[in-house]
Amino acid sequence: MGKKFRETHTIPFYECDAKRRLTIPTLIKLAVSCSTVQSEQLGVSEEDVEKLGLGWIITHYEITISRLPEQGETVTVQTEAESYNKFFCYRNFWIFDESGAECVFIESVFALMDFETRKIASVRDEVLAPFESEKIKKIKRPTPLLPFEKATESKDYRVRFYDLDANQHVNNAVYFSWLFDVLDRSFLEEHVPEKIVLNFNKEVRYGEMVVSEYELVEEVEFLATKHQVHSQDQLSCEATIYWQR
Amino acid sequence: MGKKFRETHTIPFYECDAKRRLTIPTLIKLAVSCSTVQSEQLGVSEEDVEKLGLGWIITHYEITISRLPEQGETVTVQTEAESYNKFFCYRNFWIFDESGAECVFIESVFALMDFETRKIASVRDEVLAPFESEKIKKIKRPTPLLPFEKATESKDYRVRFYDLDANQHVNNAVYFSWLFDVLDRSFLEEHVPEKIVLNFNKEVRYGEMVVSEYELVEEVEFLATKHQVHSQDQLSCEATIYWQR
Repeated sequence: MGKKFRETHTIPFYECDAKRRLTIPTLIKLAVSCSTVQSEQLGVSEEDVEKLGLGWIITHYEITISRLPEQGETVTVQTEAESYNKFFCYRNFWIFDESGAECVFIESVFALMDFETRKIASVRDEVLAPFESEKIKKIKRPTPLLPFEKATESKDYRVRFYDLDANQHVNNAVYFSWLFDVLDRSFLEEHVPEKIVLNFNKEVRYGEMVVSEYELVEEVEFLATKHQVHSQDQLSCEATIYWQR
Repeated sequence: MGKKFRETHTIPFYECDAKRRLTIPTLIKLAVSCSTVQSEQLGVSEEDVEKLGLGWIITHYEITISRLPEQGETVTVQTEAESYNKFFCYRNFWIFDESGAECVFIESVFALMDFETRKIASVRDEVLAPFESEKIKKIKRPTPLLPFEKATESKDYRVRFYDLDANQHVNNAVYFSWLFDVLDRSFLEEHVPEKIVLNFNKEVRYGEMVVSEYELVEEVEFLATKHQVHSQDQLSCEATIYWQR
């Protein structure tokens, strides 16, 4: 069990959609920002990790949403670097509202990317030590995605300058805007996700053209959209989103 | 002279570009968010104005940048609704750093849009009264733009769901991402704007395709880019950006 870290945050209008609900890309940014601040305070900031020729990347998310906070609400964001093995770090995030109720719970898998090879490097004990995460042998098996069969619709996106982060590739939160934007406006206005499972397969870089596709699945038990994002004909991200009804 | 209002804000990584400098769209969002919070506290929130069938829009910006704040800095954002006439409200914003130095000064022109006609409505005294702005007769003449002649380059953008605000059109900060993204990555990495003059001409709505064009002007006295944004063949925004050298 790692050290917990908390921050409070009042949601400004610009972190919300046209219905004044926190957007999913911002939800992700708020969470990751909390771990960035924790890392700084523990003396292993992004810049410290860069000096080792490494950068944090995220390979997997599993997001459970009870309620999306709205404009003007003050939320508490909490994070904990729970455990790690040779290659992966398991970090959890929570968003609580003012009454203390859990709005969002996120399980995530972080890894260190070598800037030169742009491949995953093994986790360094000295980078992880300050978080007091448990070192484990096991590689956790992520929740499986629903298999993608045939796109209902697709849209193209060109990577923009502001999509890049200090790792010189598209920030992980931007993928969520591609995943959601491909859906119809009326669908997005009327639906709120309750669970998002997402795998990152390959980084996307400046100027690339990205194709975001989705497939709608309506079953008796659930309403879901299955997603794939390709860049340069390679799969860069896959996800399943389950929607509240 | 209107009531002044201030907020402090610590800049998270996700409000910065790949060089960890505050992005221009976020700079605008921070400023406008400060006036949104002031309006709420004075009992004339966006929702209160919506009940009159109106929404605030921005028609002009003049932004002077001494220094762009960076990730982790705590800044103070200040605003003042200085004065207003029959149709326009003149509002200023300041961003100060921790030492009290002025990083950014923004002059802006706000107006009220009628939701039904989507045209500018006259300013209501009851909406402005709580700000203690001075009522003036004069319509201020904005700083002129450099005339646009011939595009150096252009890029297309499709309006996305998350670009919309509660007015059901593209939020004014999004135009800045179109203005900047059309420029080369290396230019953006190496240059910081020192002055931005911008006119909004026409709202842009969901699903529209936008063309952002720029023209580079290199003179002995200054380095500037002139910009036009068109949607559906109509001019929606025009700007001149002067760059530090």
